[in-house]
Amino acid sequence: MAKVLTAQADDFPRWYQDVLAKAQLAENGPVRGTMVIRPYGYSIWERMQAEVDDRIKAAGAENAYFPLFIPESYLRREAQHVEGFSPELAVVTVGGGKQLEEPIVVRPTSETVIGEYMARWIQSYRDLPLLLNSWNNVVRWELRPRIFLRTTEFLWQEGHTAHATRADAAAYAVRILRDVYEDFMVNVLAMPVLVGRKTVSERFAGAINTLTCEGMMRDGKALQMGTSHELGQNFARVFDITYLDGQGDTQHCWTTSWGSSTRMVGGLIMTHGDDDGLVVPPRLAPTQAVVLLVKDAEGAGERAAALARELGAAGLRVRLDDQVDTSFGRRATDWELKGVPVRVEVGPRDLAQGSVTVVRRDTGDKQQVPLGEAATRVAALVDRVQADMLAAAVERSDAAIADVASIDEAAQAAHVGFARLPWPLVRGEGEAQLAGKGITVRCLMGPDGALPASEDDDDIVAVVARAY
Amino acid sequence: MAKVLTAQADDFPRWYQDVLAKAQLAENGPVRGTMVIRPYGYSIWERMQAEVDDRIKAAGAENAYFPLFIPESYLRREAQHVEGFSPELAVVTVGGGKQLEEPIVVRPTSETVIGEYMARWIQSYRDLPLLLNSWNNVVRWELRPRIFLRTTEFLWQEGHTAHATRADAAAYAVRILRDVYEDFMVNVLAMPVLVGRKTVSERFAGAINTLTCEGMMRDGKALQMGTSHELGQNFARVFDITYLDGQGDTQHCWTTSWGSSTRMVGGLIMTHGDDDGLVVPPRLAPTQAVVLLVKDAEGAGERAAALARELGAAGLRVRLDDQVDTSFGRRATDWELKGVPVRVEVGPRDLAQGSVTVVRRDTGDKQQVPLGEAATRVAALVDRVQADMLAAAVERSDAAIADVASIDEAAQAAHVGFARLPWPLVRGEGEAQLAGKGITVRCLMGPDGALPASEDDDDIVAVVARAY
Repeated sequence: MAKVLTAQADDFPRWYQDVLAKAQLAENGPVRGTMVIRPYGYSIWERMQAEVDDRIKAAGAENAYFPLFIPESYLRREAQHVEGFSPELAVVTVGGGKQLEEPIVVRPTSETVIGEYMARWIQSYRDLPLLLNSWNNVVRWELRPRIFLRTTEFLWQEGHTAHATRADAAAYAVRILRDVYEDFMVNVLAMPVLVGRKTVSERFAGAINTLTCEGMMRDGKALQMGTSHELGQNFARVFDITYLDGQGDTQHCWTTSWGSSTRMVGGLIMTHGDDDGLVVPPRLAPTQAVVLLVKDAEGAGERAAALARELGAAGLRVRLDDQVDTSFGRRATDWELKGVPVRVEVGPRDLAQGSVTVVRRDTGDKQQVPLGEAATRVAALVDRVQADMLAAAVERSDAAIADVASIDEAAQAAHVGFARLPWPLVRGEGEAQLAGKGITVRCLMGPDGALPASEDDDDIVAVVARAY
Repeated sequence: MAKVLTAQADDFPRWYQDVLAKAQLAENGPVRGTMVIRPYGYSIWERMQAEVDDRIKAAGAENAYFPLFIPESYLRREAQHVEGFSPELAVVTVGGGKQLEEPIVVRPTSETVIGEYMARWIQSYRDLPLLLNSWNNVVRWELRPRIFLRTTEFLWQEGHTAHATRADAAAYAVRILRDVYEDFMVNVLAMPVLVGRKTVSERFAGAINTLTCEGMMRDGKALQMGTSHELGQNFARVFDITYLDGQGDTQHCWTTSWGSSTRMVGGLIMTHGDDDGLVVPPRLAPTQAVVLLVKDAEGAGERAAALARELGAAGLRVRLDDQVDTSFGRRATDWELKGVPVRVEVGPRDLAQGSVTVVRRDTGDKQQVPLGEAATRVAALVDRVQADMLAAAVERSDAAIADVASIDEAAQAAHVGFARLPWPLVRGEGEAQLAGKGITVRCLMGPDGALPASEDDDDIVAVVARAY
C-alpha cells in the first residue's frame, strides 16, 4: 500500500501533522492557536476523561464548576502568579455592547477564583480537606501553537484542594500524581513516565513545589503530561483561606492544585504512533476491535455482523465496518490510521476455510483464526496488545535514556533522547548552560526513583531533555 | 423543625435563592452574571449530561469540540444571527499583551464556526447527514441574571447537523426534540413538558423554525428547557456548506441546531421543589437513597453500613451518613434540603424491634420496615417515587392550564398559570398585546398535541404564559 503519511524518520513534526489530518483527529481553529477537535479525536479525549475522572473521584475529590471570567484584579493578588500568567492572557474589555469598567480575564487557570470561594466555604477544621476538581477550558495565548501540545485554548481538569497542614497537602499532591496521573498514564495509556520534582525555575507560578509526570516521545523529546503543585500558604494568605483549629485559633490552609489536559492526546500520538498512523492502547481505545467485512458474498455479511455482536457481548468496544462500497484496502488503511488495536477481517475466502483473519495494529501480525474461536482469541489479544505496547514503550524509553557524567555529555545525549546525571553537576550554572541549548531539567528523582523532598540532597539525579 | 427556607407561597423567587444556598447548589461568581456550581449542584448536572448524552448518541450524533473564540467577522455573515446576538456578546480585544487586529467574540453559540468546518468536511451526499454535538460553555451578557435560569456564562450541549434535504433536516430536528429532550424531561426529570412550535417572533436568530419543550414551574411561569431549530439553508449559504448530489450537481445543505443547558437544573428545582427544599426524581438523583445512622449504639453503625452496601449491590446510588457528631435532626434536614428521594433511618430503638424507618422525600411518608426487607422495599420505593413525582407534576401542570376564549381571559389566566386558546385569536395583534403585559406565546400545538407544520392552520392552539 502507498504510504499516506510522511515517515517519522524523514520529518517527525510533519508526520505528527499528517496523523492529525489523516486520522481526522483535529484541525486548527479560525482564531490563531485554537483547535477544532473532530469526533474521533474527541472520542479519545472522552475516554481519557472517563478514566481520569474515575481516579480523581476515587481520591475523594468532587467535581464543581467555576466561571470562565475572572476579574483582572484577582490575578494581581499573588505576585508570582500574575507574573507567570500576564503575558499569556486574553482580556475581555467589551461586554453587552459596553466598555467594561474593570477588564475581565479569560481564565488561564483558576487558583484565584477558587481560592476566593474556598475562603467562603471553609470555616473550621471539620471542613478540611476540601477536595475540588473541575473539567473545563482555559486560555493561554500561544505564539507557537501546535495542536494538542500548545494551544491557545485547551481542555483539561484542574484540581484544587485545601488542607489543615503542610504534610496533608504534600501527601495529597503526591497521591494525585501517583494514583491518578501515573497510574492512568502507565496502565491505560501504556506510557512509561518519569515521575519527579521540578526545579525552582520550572515550578508553576505561585507554587512552593511542582511534581510532574514526563513522557518520552518517539523523537526523544519530553512531554510534560500531568503536574501536581503544593501551593504552600501563598494563595491561602492572599485569598484569606483560613480555618478554626481544634483550639479555636485561626490558621491559614495549605493548598494544592493539579492538572492534566488534551495535551495527553498529543502524547498518545507521539508515544505509540508509527509510519502507518496512530496506535491506541486497548484500555483507552474508543474502538478496541473493528470487524471488517471484506466482501458481502456467501453469507460473509451476516457472519461479520454476528461476530461483532459476539465481541460486544464479551464486553469489548467493537465496531462493524460493512461499507463494502468503499474498497477493502482503503478501509483497512483508514482503521490503521486511526490505530484501532485489533482488526478482524471477515471475507468469503477465509470463511470457506472456516476462519477469519485477525490483525494486530501494534505489530502488524496476522493470524488465521477459526471463526468459532474468534471472540475468545480477540478478547485475549486485546489484553496482550495492552501489555506488549507498554513493554515496547518502556524498552524504547529505556534505550533512549543515557547516563552521563557532565553537562557536555548531557547536551550531546539530549540530541536524541534523555540524559540522566547527578543533580550536583547541574545545580546552579549547569541548568542555565543547558537552557541556552534548548535543554531543560525535566525532573529531579531520588535514589530508586523516589520523589525528593527538596533539591538539597546530593544523591538526587536530574533528567534533562529537549521538550515540547 | 424550624423552617430554613422562605415558604414558596410567601416569596417564590426568594425561596429559589434560599434553595440554591441551603442545598449548596450554586452561588454568584465574581463577574456579574456568572455562577459557581458547587459539587452537589454539579453532580446533578453530571447526571443530566450522562442521560442526555446517551440519548444524543442513540440518535446517531457524535461529540466534537469547537473553539471558544470566534472571529467577529464570522458572526456578521448571517444577518439575523448577528442582529440577535450582538447585544449579548463578550469581546476579547487584548491577547498575549497586545491589542488584537480583529476583535474576537466569546461564543454565544457555535453555528458560525461549525458551519465553516462543516463546509470543509462535507464533499458529497455520502458525507450526509453529518451529525455533531458539543458539550461546552457559552457566554451571553445578561443584565438581569438569575442562577441557572439566565447567566452570562452557562454550560450546555449544542448539536449541529447537516442534511441533504429539507425533509431530512426537519425530521431530525423533531427526532432530537422528542427522543432526546422530551424523553429525558418526562422520563428522567419527571417533568411534564409542552412540546410545540415557536411563533416567528420567538424563533432562534437565523432559524426558519424553532421547536421547544416548555416546562411549568410551581409559580405558574414557563421555562423553555430545550429547543431544536431548522436553520433552512441560511447558514449553508453564507458558509458554503454544499455537497455533490448523485448526479454530480452542487447543492446547499439543510442544517439544524439544538440545545439544552444548565437551565434545566433551575427547572428541576422549580418543578419539584417544596418548602423543605429540593426534591430530586430517583432516575436523576446522584444519591437515590441515604442511609442515615441515628446513633452509633448497639450495633446500629454496622447495620447501617451493611444496609448501605446491600442497597449499592442492588444497583442503587446510595450514601451512608454516619456523621453522628452532627445532630440527627440537622442531618435529616440537610438531606431533605438536598432532595434525596429516599431516606433510611437506622437507629438502636428501631433495630430493637428489628426494623428501620423509611422516609419518602416527595410525600414525607414514613414507614417502619423489617430490616431484612429493607433493601427490596427501598428499591421498589425508588421506582414508585419516580412514577408518583411525574404524576403529581402532571396533575399540578394540568390544573394550572386554563382553556380560554379571548386575549383578555388569557392575560387573566396567565397571572397564575398557562392559558390555552385558539391561535387565530392571537395571531397578529394579539401576540403584541400580550407581550405588553409580559406574556408570551410559549408554543403552538396542533390538534392532539401534534407539531404544526406551519403557523397557518386554523386548528392550531397557542399556549401563552409568563416565562423565565
